[in-house]
Amino acid sequence: MLKFTLMKKTGSLTLLLLFCIAGIAQQNDTLLIRKIADEILQNSAAYENLRVLTKKIGPRLAGSEGMVKSEKWGYELLQKTGADTVWMQQCMVPHWVRGGKDETTITYTGPNGKTNKKALQVVALGNSLGSGPGGFNAELIEVASFEDLDAKKDQVKGKIVFFNYHFKKEFVHTFRGYGDAVKYRVQGASAAAKYGAVAVIIRSISHAEDNTAHTGSIQYDDKYPKIPAVAVGLQDADWLSMLSKEKKLKAIVKTFGYTKPDTIGHNIIAEWRGTVFPDEIITIGGHLDSWDNCEGAHDDGAGCVQTIEILRALKATGYRPKRTIRFVLFANEENGLRGGLKYAEVARQKNEKHIFALESDAGGFTPRGFGIAAPREVLARMKQWEPLLAPYGTLLYPGGGGADIGPLHRDLGTPMAGLDPDSQRYFDYHHAASDVFEAVNKRELDLGTVNMAALIYLVDQYGL
Amino acid sequence: MLKFTLMKKTGSLTLLLLFCIAGIAQQNDTLLIRKIADEILQNSAAYENLRVLTKKIGPRLAGSEGMVKSEKWGYELLQKTGADTVWMQQCMVPHWVRGGKDETTITYTGPNGKTNKKALQVVALGNSLGSGPGGFNAELIEVASFEDLDAKKDQVKGKIVFFNYHFKKEFVHTFRGYGDAVKYRVQGASAAAKYGAVAVIIRSISHAEDNTAHTGSIQYDDKYPKIPAVAVGLQDADWLSMLSKEKKLKAIVKTFGYTKPDTIGHNIIAEWRGTVFPDEIITIGGHLDSWDNCEGAHDDGAGCVQTIEILRALKATGYRPKRTIRFVLFANEENGLRGGLKYAEVARQKNEKHIFALESDAGGFTPRGFGIAAPREVLARMKQWEPLLAPYGTLLYPGGGGADIGPLHRDLGTPMAGLDPDSQRYFDYHHAASDVFEAVNKRELDLGTVNMAALIYLVDQYGL
Repeated sequence: MLKFTLMKKTGSLTLLLLFCIAGIAQQNDTLLIRKIADEILQNSAAYENLRVLTKKIGPRLAGSEGMVKSEKWGYELLQKTGADTVWMQQCMVPHWVRGGKDETTITYTGPNGKTNKKALQVVALGNSLGSGPGGFNAELIEVASFEDLDAKKDQVKGKIVFFNYHFKKEFVHTFRGYGDAVKYRVQGASAAAKYGAVAVIIRSISHAEDNTAHTGSIQYDDKYPKIPAVAVGLQDADWLSMLSKEKKLKAIVKTFGYTKPDTIGHNIIAEWRGTVFPDEIITIGGHLDSWDNCEGAHDDGAGCVQTIEILRALKATGYRPKRTIRFVLFANEENGLRGGLKYAEVARQKNEKHIFALESDAGGFTPRGFGIAAPREVLARMKQWEPLLAPYGTLLYPGGGGADIGPLHRDLGTPMAGLDPDSQRYFDYHHAASDVFEAVNKRELDLGTVNMAALIYLVDQYGL
Repeated sequence: MLKFTLMKKTGSLTLLLLFCIAGIAQQNDTLLIRKIADEILQNSAAYENLRVLTKKIGPRLAGSEGMVKSEKWGYELLQKTGADTVWMQQCMVPHWVRGGKDETTITYTGPNGKTNKKALQVVALGNSLGSGPGGFNAELIEVASFEDLDAKKDQVKGKIVFFNYHFKKEFVHTFRGYGDAVKYRVQGASAAAKYGAVAVIIRSISHAEDNTAHTGSIQYDDKYPKIPAVAVGLQDADWLSMLSKEKKLKAIVKTFGYTKPDTIGHNIIAEWRGTVFPDEIITIGGHLDSWDNCEGAHDDGAGCVQTIEILRALKATGYRPKRTIRFVLFANEENGLRGGLKYAEVARQKNEKHIFALESDAGGFTPRGFGIAAPREVLARMKQWEPLLAPYGTLLYPGGGGADIGPLHRDLGTPMAGLDPDSQRYFDYHHAASDVFEAVNKRELDLGTVNMAALIYLVDQYGL
């Protein structure tokens, strides 16, 4: 219908010419994206870089020695990869320390009248305070939900509350299941403290088949006592739930966490200056920090090495960007977001023109699409690129972004997108000791990079 | 445009009624598919069944003891799952036996003048004959391709040919890379024998990062001597190629394969009779056999347990099929296809009406779509179901099917479809010792089943 109206207004010859030019542009894009994809699929260094980050550096929570090592690694690698300039953008980061090996032991009277003991697979939640060396030894009470807790509020005082809320498996997109369940991790401790509980055990926010415990941040509500919180592996959670229906159980919870004063961390920023519109900035990034109990391979080593690989691959194909492209390894996403906040703060202070930001922070799995937060007309424009991305497996749709680029979007109005990989395996590994290099597949990781690079190429070519 | 023409012809009231009915049908389908999906995602037994098949039975090549055990397992499980009738359809299957541990050792003169030895990670290809106990000890010659072999034909006599053709990583759909490279596995032995080679070493048909060797069938050309053929792991292939450019290498190839007379195998067939059109048959299946060097978890334990799970889940939701649904575990896909051929032969003899066949034989990974081989109008009809499948991640497109249902399609014209899972990891495991239970992810497997069950539901409801 649009075509028809245009035809009458402009005359068919002009229109034909326009179509030809558009056709040639599209064909060039197809060829250039194919060239970038070939470079990545054949020669990507991302997997090997991930091996170094996860195996030689390993855990890198804000404030830790691993954080410092990983910052140096990122800085040097981005320099070596050929950025015009690389700098470390300082920001203060929180400094939570686990302080020891978290323990939770269940005791109960066995059939022979003897006391049985079982040590559970647990990990203290991030920001959780220590129990003191003796731990808390108290009766266990299981609750299925916050509603169930409220109903049992008179039975909670002096006890250890076991939140056994199940991650809903029926959501096809697992992040919806996470969104539904994660409130128990974040708010469970204070919700139970409100009724006098002395500690909480949270069913890990996961659908995994194994027994690994999954950490993640909690937020204490200052109105209530700050009590220790651990997450328990799913097999142990099921065992606990089964047994607690039959017997009176006691739990001994020991944690050792404490928070030191804020310390210095850095965003690692590499810049490749644009040749036509150098003042227009495109940001690509992932976060460099990880939880302390894992290698942080999917979360978010993957996003970091994908970001660096885009620089390597574009340079290898001889590409010269029209706009300035920034490759950013953000600090402290896991328990503070201080890196993302600092990046946006400086951008605003310097009055930088940020036209687009892209983050990869949902694992190094096969890409399915990009979730985009942008005005409707920008999204409509981007949607026209779908045929160029389709051969590599991604679609473009509204709703998405990334935690670290969120402040840029919120404060500067920068359109943002998040790589949306297949989500089926993500919560097997998320914040758990199982998030290791071996859990990442090279081709899946590389295919994510291909799609990110293609999208960045299109934004660089045509703006938004 | 169609709507408009229709409106004028039929009158708007009739049309409105039609749309309402169609709308209600669509809404019912949405709800029923959601119910089936919930049942599978929450309660699927497929993963546990796969554990038993892979860990308790394990390898199950045609003619082996594992084949017999797996047939019994499938028969009993389908009975227990609630099929109306289950039977074993006999067919003669080939009986190739590996006969011993395949070995390939490289010898070369080291810097100190001494002879160095290195044992390669190898596996004899399926159908390969034995070398005799002493093996073949001969000079190695590397060729990059058949063209390269032809160019070097005068240097091949009496030597061992190393085909070092690389699996092309730039294909996004890895089956295209497989299709491009697999001719070296299938035809390499005879191509080299033609010029007098005594044995061949084939670079494994894979893009894996590890060193596991990948087997698979070869076809000997009766015109040339039948020489032993092994596949070598990719890391060893790269080492071999590097060293052969510097030094004269000798290889000792030992294989022990032989072929016994055909023996008796079975398709395991379960039938759930239709309540409205019992004579119209829908077939779902995977193949029960696997190579002898692996657990056959992705290839094709996954397809078998998905097939059985569809029966379990549909029954659990209280579904009653309109048409007759057959759940088939096919015999001998890997080195003979005798099961698929027998199934079609009997269907033709009995003049059965097969309206649709669906196979899952591309791994238990996240589903991306169904490739369909059907007349254009049938495909167009199925395409209208895409909005119902989209929430679960699949599309419908032309081109696909399955090896085992191929004869049914070819001989009876039955429309067929193949589940098309994400292909990035498939050739890491294909025909290799790494194809084990642990390589399958429960959610990915279950999501494949969800989509298969949804498609079967739609075919059952509306025919084709």
